Amino acid sequence: MNATLLTVGDELLDGDTTNTNARWLAAELAERGVTTERVLTVPDETDVIAEATRRYSERFDAVVVTGGLGGTPDDVTMDSVAAAFDRELVENDLARADVERHLEAIADDYPELNVDVAAEAAIPAGSRPLRNPVGLSPGCVLENVYVLPGIPSEMKGMFERVADEFDGDVDSRYLYTEEPEASLIERLNEVRERFGVRVGCYPDREAGHNRLKISDSDGEALAAAEAWLRDRVVLSG
Amino acid sequence: MNATLLTVGDELLDGDTTNTNARWLAAELAERGVTTERVLTVPDETDVIAEATRRYSERFDAVVVTGGLGGTPDDVTMDSVAAAFDRELVENDLARADVERHLEAIADDYPELNVDVAAEAAIPAGSRPLRNPVGLSPGCVLENVYVLPGIPSEMKGMFERVADEFDGDVDSRYLYTEEPEASLIERLNEVRERFGVRVGCYPDREAGHNRLKISDSDGEALAAAEAWLRDRVVLSG
Repeated sequence: MNATLLTVGDELLDGDTTNTNARWLAAELAERGVTTERVLTVPDETDVIAEATRRYSERFDAVVVTGGLGGTPDDVTMDSVAAAFDRELVENDLARADVERHLEAIADDYPELNVDVAAEAAIPAGSRPLRNPVGLSPGCVLENVYVLPGIPSEMKGMFERVADEFDGDVDSRYLYTEEPEASLIERLNEVRERFGVRVGCYPDREAGHNRLKISDSDGEALAAAEAWLRDRVVLSG
Repeated sequence: MNATLLTVGDELLDGDTTNTNARWLAAELAERGVTTERVLTVPDETDVIAEATRRYSERFDAVVVTGGLGGTPDDVTMDSVAAAFDRELVENDLARADVERHLEAIADDYPELNVDVAAEAAIPAGSRPLRNPVGLSPGCVLENVYVLPGIPSEMKGMFERVADEFDGDVDSRYLYTEEPEASLIERLNEVRERFGVRVGCYPDREAGHNRLKISDSDGEALAAAEAWLRDRVVLSG
């Protein structure tokens, strides 16, 4: 299984925010053996979000969209995902109940809050609502597209509810060496060709070593590649 | 002027690394009035990098590519950018001199280092080499595509040498308010429609306020929009 991440928000493109959601989600997917094929950040523009959603939905097994849920004018993700699949936004009963419950819980803190509940509880027709355990805006699943909030605590809380739906078979092994990257090239090329595994070499200057990573969906090839490297690289750490 | 960022590396897609380069570059571009239209992360695969480079180069004013320079098998960015423009990789004299100087400087630390200097100093035919003030691998500029290393210190050092080539006219203003996001919607919609400015609203839960951001390339419209909002929003901080 492979996936893509579509992270929505001008604040990411303006350099106001670091895309920590992408790393968190990618790590969660990797832990489940799922390969993240692309991470794309787009502005809060309906056409751009809809086009990217449609394209990724057709080409990859799953698309996780984060950001741009809620009621302010820059929150256009739900509209965009609906447009990507030619659906209308419709109020969802389960989502509405959640929105009302959340508003009740925060009513004392925000006595003058005036929320358009129907708009907050609207998700694309035919989609499955995803409950927001921490915040106001619900998410949804439409075909292979998962729509999650952008606020990290809300995004994480909602992802956990669907995490089991992501399941792949790619495994990885890490080796650490103080050998310089340039002198490792031949061995890294050879292990890749010999066992067909994916190979990465990442310098960690602070730790003073290079991190080698090998990945594959074939456990036997991966184990053989690891053993081959262990015999030929001076390992550290 | 607008731009896109193309960040290359399996380590970003595996969730091993947070894409701090994207935020740093986006902030540098925003400071120069340049709008970042997309940030795309792709794997270390020549076809994917080449296709994205070509597509973004055609559609946007500038493309900044980071990551995947160097000699290990996963470093395919130079090949990919060359392929995007149907060029060969050729050894560049200026780049070669830099590579040799760098190798000489680190020779005492790595006496057994065995680097293919010609390969390290190869950039796409017809491109302008970018010197690496901190590390081994040179970058380059080919048409509107800037190729920088992925290691943050090297990327930053190299970007500073071309920073003046990025120049736009978008300006931004920030306002802070403790008013809840949901109650701001009408005013945010109105300021957007009335002055044609871009509007964002970002909750900062730790600081306990919402950050409003308005941006535009028309300074008068931006000032008028800011004044209009200041009269109508309860500001904090």
